[in-house]
Amino acid sequence: MFVIKIGLLGLGTVGKGVYNIINNEKGYYFQTEADAPQIVKILVTDTNKDRGNDLDYSLLTTDPDDILLDNTIDIVVAVMGGGEPELKYVLRALNNKKHVVTANKQIISDNMALLLSTAKENNVSLMFEASVGGGIPIIDTMQQLLKINRINNVTGILNGTTNFILSQMSQHRSSFDDALKVAQQMGFAEADPTADVMGFDVSRKLSILSSLAYNHIIKDENIYKRGITSIAAADIEMTRMNGYVLKYVAQSFLKGDKYYTAVAPALIKESTELAVVNNEYNVIILNGNIIGEIKVSGKGAGQNPTANAVVGDIIYILEKKSPIEADFSNPIRNGGMDEFRGKYYFRFRVENSAQFSSVFDCVDKYVEKKDAIYQKGNLFFFTEEIASSVALKIENETTKICENIFFARVIE
Amino acid sequence: MFVIKIGLLGLGTVGKGVYNIINNEKGYYFQTEADAPQIVKILVTDTNKDRGNDLDYSLLTTDPDDILLDNTIDIVVAVMGGGEPELKYVLRALNNKKHVVTANKQIISDNMALLLSTAKENNVSLMFEASVGGGIPIIDTMQQLLKINRINNVTGILNGTTNFILSQMSQHRSSFDDALKVAQQMGFAEADPTADVMGFDVSRKLSILSSLAYNHIIKDENIYKRGITSIAAADIEMTRMNGYVLKYVAQSFLKGDKYYTAVAPALIKESTELAVVNNEYNVIILNGNIIGEIKVSGKGAGQNPTANAVVGDIIYILEKKSPIEADFSNPIRNGGMDEFRGKYYFRFRVENSAQFSSVFDCVDKYVEKKDAIYQKGNLFFFTEEIASSVALKIENETTKICENIFFARVIE
Repeated sequence: MFVIKIGLLGLGTVGKGVYNIINNEKGYYFQTEADAPQIVKILVTDTNKDRGNDLDYSLLTTDPDDILLDNTIDIVVAVMGGGEPELKYVLRALNNKKHVVTANKQIISDNMALLLSTAKENNVSLMFEASVGGGIPIIDTMQQLLKINRINNVTGILNGTTNFILSQMSQHRSSFDDALKVAQQMGFAEADPTADVMGFDVSRKLSILSSLAYNHIIKDENIYKRGITSIAAADIEMTRMNGYVLKYVAQSFLKGDKYYTAVAPALIKESTELAVVNNEYNVIILNGNIIGEIKVSGKGAGQNPTANAVVGDIIYILEKKSPIEADFSNPIRNGGMDEFRGKYYFRFRVENSAQFSSVFDCVDKYVEKKDAIYQKGNLFFFTEEIASSVALKIENETTKICENIFFARVIE
Repeated sequence: MFVIKIGLLGLGTVGKGVYNIINNEKGYYFQTEADAPQIVKILVTDTNKDRGNDLDYSLLTTDPDDILLDNTIDIVVAVMGGGEPELKYVLRALNNKKHVVTANKQIISDNMALLLSTAKENNVSLMFEASVGGGIPIIDTMQQLLKINRINNVTGILNGTTNFILSQMSQHRSSFDDALKVAQQMGFAEADPTADVMGFDVSRKLSILSSLAYNHIIKDENIYKRGITSIAAADIEMTRMNGYVLKYVAQSFLKGDKYYTAVAPALIKESTELAVVNNEYNVIILNGNIIGEIKVSGKGAGQNPTANAVVGDIIYILEKKSPIEADFSNPIRNGGMDEFRGKYYFRFRVENSAQFSSVFDCVDKYVEKKDAIYQKGNLFFFTEEIASSVALKIENETTKICENIFFARVIE
C-alpha cells in the first residue's frame, strides 16, 4: 500500500493541532481512510522538550534537511511562523518537488508571486488557506468565486486579538489597556501585541486576499494602516449612543484602474453583519459582479480551526484538485486613500478652553456640516461625508494642538 | 479542439441566467478559456415564445431526447423545477452517462440516495449546489468540512421570500398580508406563496443539508414545520420591545443516536448573526467538532446568484474534482421535537374576559414561571425554559379557546 508522507516544519500551536487531527483520531478523514497520509518527520528546535504524551518523539529532528532532502516525503507542512528560515525551507521544499501547505501569512504576503511561480515550475501545489481567517475557508471560496466573478470589494474583520479587545471594551466599558491585559491572560494576545494592535497582522492578510482578488500583487507595505491603541472608553460610549459599534476593519476595493486599501478602526452601524462579529471570530465579505455579496465567518484563530484549514489543504492536494491559480498581470495601481470617503467621527481630549477653540477652528476650516458634542473633557464631532485625505489633514493639524485624539470612518 | 457540450433542460429564470453567464460574456471563465464548454441544445415547452434578443433560438427544442439521447452531450443542466418530468429526465441523463447539474431541490430532497447512487454506478457526477441557498456555496463548504469534522448542528435562514416578508413587517410595521403583497409585487414571492410561507420549501432544503451533514437520509416529510402566516404586527412589536427579531428558522441537530429537525418561526436575540440577515439574504451556520462554528451568507435567490451556483458546479465537473460523497448508513433515528427546549413566546387574541381566564389558566397549568402582558386585546407570555412538547400541548388546548394564536421558541 502506497502512503503519502508528510514532513512537518514546526510543532507550535498549529503544528500540534495538525499532528492531533492526523494522528490522535480527531480528523474524520484519517480515521476512515486506510491509506491516509502519515507524518513521518517533524522539525523542532529542541527534541528533548516535554510536549505531552500523545506524540511519537522518534519523529522529531532538528535538521531541516531530514525533511527537505528526503525523497520519500511528498508534502511539507510549514507552520513555524516569522520570515526566515521558513521562507528558505519552503523554497527548498518546492524546488525539491514537494507540495507545501503553510499557515505563514508573512512569507505568503511578502513572496506570493515568487512562491506560486516556484510551485508551478516544479509542478507541485502551494496552499495557504490557514494564513488568513483561521478556520474560515476564504481562500478556497474566493478561488471558486473568481472562476465566474470579478471581485471588486474585500471587507473584513481579520484579527481575532483586536476584535476580542474591542469586544471586551464594548461589553465591560473597560480601557484599551485593561482589555489588552484580559486578552493576554486568556491567550488571545501575545506578550508583545504590536503586530496585532498596530495592524501589521491584518494588513498582511488583506494583502493576500486583495492580491488574489484583483490579480495584482498588493504589497503589505503599501496598505494604509492605523492601529487601535488610541481608542478610549469614551469612544466606545459615544459611538454606541449614536448607534455604532467600533470595529477594526480591513478593506480594499477596485475603482477603474486603481485599487484602494486600508486597515483602520471604523464605526459600523449596529445590527449589521460586520457589527455582530465578536471576540475571536473573523468575517470576510466579498462582492462579486454576478453572485453579489458573500459573507463567511468563523473562528479566526486558535489551534483547532487553524489546523483544520491546514489539514483541509493537505486533503485538497491528496485529491489532486487544481492548485491555486494566480495571475498578477492586471495593470492596476494604488489609488492611495482618496476614495475612502465617508462620514467621520473625531474625538479630541481638550484640557482647556484655548485647546477647545483651536481644535474647533481647525475642524471648522475643513468641514462645513458636523455635529459637535463636548462631554467630560472630550470634544466629539460627527462630520458630513468627507474624503479621507481631509480627515488626515485634520488629524495632522490637530496633533499639534492636543495629544489625545481618535478618529474613524463611519461605515453605514 | 475538444469542447465539452452542455444540454440545458429549462429556460426559466435560472436557465436564462446560466445561458447568460456562459454565452453573453458575463462569466469570467467563459471569457478567458478558449476551450470553454458550450450550450448546444435547450429544452423548452414553446420554441416560438419571445425570449429576448440575446439568445440563439436555433438551440431550442421541445424534445427531451434531443438532449438525453445525444451522445455528444457531456453535461445536462436540469433547471425546470417541480417533480416530474425532471426527475425522469435526470435519471435518464445519468443512466446515459452524462454528468448532471441541477437546481431542483424537490427532486434532490425526495431522491438523493437514488440519484447519487445512479450517478456513481454510471461513473458520472451529480451536483446540486444551487438547490440550497441560491449563490451561497454551502454544499461545497459542507463537503469540505465533513472530510475532517463531524457536523452536529445545522441552523439557517433558507428562504428569501419569507425572510423578505418578515423584514418588511419589521421595517414598516405592516401586517403579514400587506408584506406578502409587497413581496409579490417585487417578484420575491409567487402568486401562490404556500410552499414558502408554510415551510415546504425550507424543509426540503433542510432535508438536503441534514442528510449530507449526518450521513443519513432525513426525509422532508419527517421534518416538523410550522408556517409564518399567523404572525401579526403585534408579535413583531412585542418581540422587538423585548430585544428580539422574528425569523423563520430551519434547524437540525444530532444528540446521541437521534436527530431533531424543525422549520418554525423563532425569536432571535437582536444583534446576533441570525438576526441581522435581512430581505432576500440567506445564512447557514454549521457546527463542526474541530473547526467550530462556520457561517456563510449571501443572496438566497435570484437569477444571477442561483445561476452562479449552477455554473460553479459545471466548472467543478470540468476540473474533474471529486463528486459529492454521500454515505447514508449512519444508524440514527428521528427524535421528534422533544429536544427543542427553550423559552417560548405566546400571543393569544382574546375577545373577552372568559377567553382571557381560560387561556391564562391553560398556560398556568403547564408553565410555572412566565411573564404575562395584556395589551390591546392580546395576551402575551414569555415562559421559562420548557420542552417543545409542552408548547405544542398549550397550542393544542388553547386553539379550542381562541382562534388567533402565535407562538415561537426563543433562540438566545
